[in-house]
Amino acid sequence: MKTENAVNPDLIAERKKCTFNTLELTHLLDGGAKKTEERRSREKFFLEDPQLQSKVPLEYLSHKEKYEEAVRKACIIFQKVQELQNEGRGGMDNFREILGGQLGSAILKDGNPLTLHYVMFIPTLMGQGTLEQQSEWIQKAWNCDIIGTYAQTELGHGTFIRGLETTATYDPAKQEFVLHSPTLTSYKWWPGGLGHSANYAVVLAQLYTQGKCHGIHPFVVQLRDEETHQPLPGIKIGEIGCKLGMNSTNNGYLGFDRVRIPRTNLLMKNNQVLEDGTYKKSPSSKLTYGTMIFVRVVIVQDAAHYLRKAVTIATRYSAVRHQSEIKPNTGEPQIIDFVTQQYKLFPHIATYFAFQYSATWLWDVYNNVTTELEAGQLESLPELHAIACCLKAVSSADAAQGVEICRLACGGHGYMTSSNLPSTYGLVTAMCTYEGENTVLLLQTARFLIKMWQNRNKLEKLSTVKYLGNDLNKNRPFERSVDWIIHALQQTAARKIELANRHINERVRNGKVYEDAWNESSIELVAAAEAHCRAFIVETFRNTVNGLEVSTELKIVLVQLLNLYAVYTALRLTGDLLRFTSITGNDVDTLQGWLEELLALIRPNAVSIVDSFDIRDEVLGSTLGASDGRVYERLFEEASKSPLNSEPVNKSFKLYLKPFLKASL
Amino acid sequence: MKTENAVNPDLIAERKKCTFNTLELTHLLDGGAKKTEERRSREKFFLEDPQLQSKVPLEYLSHKEKYEEAVRKACIIFQKVQELQNEGRGGMDNFREILGGQLGSAILKDGNPLTLHYVMFIPTLMGQGTLEQQSEWIQKAWNCDIIGTYAQTELGHGTFIRGLETTATYDPAKQEFVLHSPTLTSYKWWPGGLGHSANYAVVLAQLYTQGKCHGIHPFVVQLRDEETHQPLPGIKIGEIGCKLGMNSTNNGYLGFDRVRIPRTNLLMKNNQVLEDGTYKKSPSSKLTYGTMIFVRVVIVQDAAHYLRKAVTIATRYSAVRHQSEIKPNTGEPQIIDFVTQQYKLFPHIATYFAFQYSATWLWDVYNNVTTELEAGQLESLPELHAIACCLKAVSSADAAQGVEICRLACGGHGYMTSSNLPSTYGLVTAMCTYEGENTVLLLQTARFLIKMWQNRNKLEKLSTVKYLGNDLNKNRPFERSVDWIIHALQQTAARKIELANRHINERVRNGKVYEDAWNESSIELVAAAEAHCRAFIVETFRNTVNGLEVSTELKIVLVQLLNLYAVYTALRLTGDLLRFTSITGNDVDTLQGWLEELLALIRPNAVSIVDSFDIRDEVLGSTLGASDGRVYERLFEEASKSPLNSEPVNKSFKLYLKPFLKASL
Repeated sequence: MKTENAVNPDLIAERKKCTFNTLELTHLLDGGAKKTEERRSREKFFLEDPQLQSKVPLEYLSHKEKYEEAVRKACIIFQKVQELQNEGRGGMDNFREILGGQLGSAILKDGNPLTLHYVMFIPTLMGQGTLEQQSEWIQKAWNCDIIGTYAQTELGHGTFIRGLETTATYDPAKQEFVLHSPTLTSYKWWPGGLGHSANYAVVLAQLYTQGKCHGIHPFVVQLRDEETHQPLPGIKIGEIGCKLGMNSTNNGYLGFDRVRIPRTNLLMKNNQVLEDGTYKKSPSSKLTYGTMIFVRVVIVQDAAHYLRKAVTIATRYSAVRHQSEIKPNTGEPQIIDFVTQQYKLFPHIATYFAFQYSATWLWDVYNNVTTELEAGQLESLPELHAIACCLKAVSSADAAQGVEICRLACGGHGYMTSSNLPSTYGLVTAMCTYEGENTVLLLQTARFLIKMWQNRNKLEKLSTVKYLGNDLNKNRPFERSVDWIIHALQQTAARKIELANRHINERVRNGKVYEDAWNESSIELVAAAEAHCRAFIVETFRNTVNGLEVSTELKIVLVQLLNLYAVYTALRLTGDLLRFTSITGNDVDTLQGWLEELLALIRPNAVSIVDSFDIRDEVLGSTLGASDGRVYERLFEEASKSPLNSEPVNKSFKLYLKPFLKASL
Repeated sequence: MKTENAVNPDLIAERKKCTFNTLELTHLLDGGAKKTEERRSREKFFLEDPQLQSKVPLEYLSHKEKYEEAVRKACIIFQKVQELQNEGRGGMDNFREILGGQLGSAILKDGNPLTLHYVMFIPTLMGQGTLEQQSEWIQKAWNCDIIGTYAQTELGHGTFIRGLETTATYDPAKQEFVLHSPTLTSYKWWPGGLGHSANYAVVLAQLYTQGKCHGIHPFVVQLRDEETHQPLPGIKIGEIGCKLGMNSTNNGYLGFDRVRIPRTNLLMKNNQVLEDGTYKKSPSSKLTYGTMIFVRVVIVQDAAHYLRKAVTIATRYSAVRHQSEIKPNTGEPQIIDFVTQQYKLFPHIATYFAFQYSATWLWDVYNNVTTELEAGQLESLPELHAIACCLKAVSSADAAQGVEICRLACGGHGYMTSSNLPSTYGLVTAMCTYEGENTVLLLQTARFLIKMWQNRNKLEKLSTVKYLGNDLNKNRPFERSVDWIIHALQQTAARKIELANRHINERVRNGKVYEDAWNESSIELVAAAEAHCRAFIVETFRNTVNGLEVSTELKIVLVQLLNLYAVYTALRLTGDLLRFTSITGNDVDTLQGWLEELLALIRPNAVSIVDSFDIRDEVLGSTLGASDGRVYERLFEEASKSPLNSEPVNKSFKLYLKPFLKASL
């Protein structure tokens, strides 16, 4: 069979139709031409290193072999990270990207067992250790003399941190803490790299001293011998087994049988235990809030990245794949010409932009608030926390759903591992439950919104909830515009908050205690937080696009995507809009017509827009999505890598099948 | 650590609250006490056979080892199937259940490489072979002297069967067909067991004779030598590689390089090629329609089964898991007491019943229509086809989404392979794209609906679309009842069909050809077919429950579930109801209140309802869902089976990590 290297002619034709400069969009999304160049050079540095190639695709290996190959690569990656550092090309942001972000998941598709060393262990030492402790630990960690992880979640305890059971009891006689796992449910469970990779960990435990529990505190604990890697006495450790995805992250469990560590292994920047066992509380414990919010900021960005990867694959595949007929005897069209297919893809292209701009907004605000915090100003923290919670929940849930829609839009071939869509889903859906389960987070946002609603006369300073001060009875007449949609979404959110609040109050009046009334109204509270978040995302998208200085050609495309995202969001919430705004059934019809127009407008640029994301083929890692569109050749080439295909007859024929065939009857 | 075998006390307490007889419900769902007994005995026969246990859980093996273990088990399963047959306990329905249904996916979690032999190969021989051909092939197949599969889909061709490229050209000189794969895209791709397992296949190919193409026909083709299992000359064969799920089904590819087979290997029950090459068409080619519909009937049933498995796991886990607080300092409640959690679980319990009853209805109608077909009556076929299409699409999509909601409702632990939720999703989501991609199927239903709409004055015979004859302007005033909801859903469906039809006509008036107008209106057409389907499912649920003769206690529970499914469906379609019926915003509020009441009513029986599904622990295959609720013990026991945990230090430490740690700086 011929496997030429020519680009698929359908993709060539699509690219000819492009009405804007794709490089301009690439630079815009990277944050400037220089950033594009840096990213490309970083990608080249890692992805073209022959040491970082695998002989056999990971999916064919056993679980154990996957882990071993991942450790091999992880060490090379760390070495290269250190090289970058020495050349002054380091920085924590880049590390995250290399270890766990878009680039990281290209080098190690199924997760990196050492990631938490840079992403959680070192930052916790920096954030929670005293200067003295930092000088002791950070140099060692930074040089990779030790490898650490972060052990918080337990078998029986995730979301509710106060419920953690591991104890650290201070023994003033020996000036040591005794770490202990009193129950099976108190075993640490989930931390990445904990199974067989790390030899140190920051362990979160309930601190007991002088007979009193002071709640959860972080301790530095050595887990394994530095020379032999054998678990230290009293440490029960292993990996937790296979998962839906990330099978080489080596998530582990950890139990303590009265393990002693020096007093000074308690990270004491915020709270201290003195030699005699006296507990000294920090004046401001809110400072540790920052890391938690930071991780959520990162998740919104990652959600955007996973989605753009999936939509790139599905859009290119849809331009190459021909199937069925639109008109009889005119041949099989590109499936991207089916309007139902456009409806699956283009709103997710637009959603990527929407999430990207919310992520950028959140990152900027996070940095401002962090600066304020360092100056002792805490006022903005609740609002930042509330918006970060709902953005994490909505972006991870929508991105996961979007990735699945893209996968299903590729039909059966999307089910192939080599499409890289299943693995992308595995990574994105994990974000829905980790770092704060989505429903729990939306309820946290709702709690803030209800509080703001009750104080809606004094909201001037709070940008994300300003609309709660609007007059709800003042309807803005329908018009086919993004501004109207934003107004309608805000009105909807406000009314949903009002309604949930009213239902809580009704339940309280009927004799329920407030907490039960809250629980009984929680379906509506979650929906209110979600509506609030969607209004915010559309508004941020509009504000960003309005503020961009780009060529007219590109602006046209960005406005089309903004319009599509807005109208798509509005139509998803038709029930709410009909209920809470002045919109009529005919107006909904108008919006539906607008949606269909926008799909047709975006159609000629669809491939070029995803081209502009400038995702290297190795990062896409997909037979269906590569930039040359050689879909069928790549599917075939990938299949040929299966070890089962290296011999015409598998041994199971002789062992099982032949004896059975001959014996039967 | 203690690992007692006592049942979790939370589950004991839940079971005490039960208000009905769980065994009565089990019998009802099985179709009678005798059926329950048969099922249980069948399950015992397979699941307690020590030969069918695996030493190491499949997920830890390499792709190749998984396949080898699957062939080992598959041969034992076939042997046992033959035993059953000899004892008169056989029958095709049971075979399907054993090979691919709920029981099958318990024995071989990741798919059976030999399933298509019984499920597609033999039925095709029976359905499409002449009596002479049947006598030649079926005995051999039935005795398992040969193992067959069914090769239709190609690398470049799935949904659109007419587009298949494989050719079978008749050579009258030698009285042979020459099978050929003219392009890469014409390679067969996907058939289960084709890679390395089967030695025969029914191959679908374009039949050419006397210079003319007569379209797709089925041919029996030998693929491998019966003694050596070596591929025969001209046969290019292998497996297609890893997938999201079903990694031991050995899906294969197959290319032909001018492979010759006897003329008589064309299955000629319907169409024939005579020795001289004359083509003789069958009078009724619609007869082959039946198999396609049959598979969709089966899918609706499977969708119901996968969903009930997931909801059993998630409901039991939610009764055992404690987390967070509702009221401060009252301890961590069972998470099933959070109303948001009930909202994730209980509607899916109800959905299982809804799908189960639609599946039963469809099965009965399918059998009736098949009988009619054999008597030459074809009138009911289009309606059966239309309802089977949309039921397949809606049940597979909703079940897949439901399984994921259940998985996510188990938090991080739902991400563990040992929860069996990821693998269940892998199986259920596959149904969205195979045997007719869902969007394509909904558009087929829409085509029927538009036709019926245009003829709505003569619908009396057609039960599923009778409502199209109703007066759309006659609104039925809102009431809090299932009957009103059904009326409203039907009115919605009718109006959506009307609207889509109107938009097609408008586009035609504006100069579009009909097919383009259809394509441009297809988002609305899909939505109309979906609304039609949902109305049908609720109606069938009501009709079934109304007709059941059961105890009052059980009836109460079934009516609660019916009510919940109806109101849940209505609230999902709030936008449509507000647009197309007389419902108001206040009425929506009433429905929301009803939903919340129903969740509270079902809460005490939730565990007992899923207990009634009577799913053996081996069938659930889940650490989180077992009937004794020993969630944490099982998670730990499963983790201990990981080969990585069999040694304290993995070799990657010496090979990679230690050299790196020591070298750095």
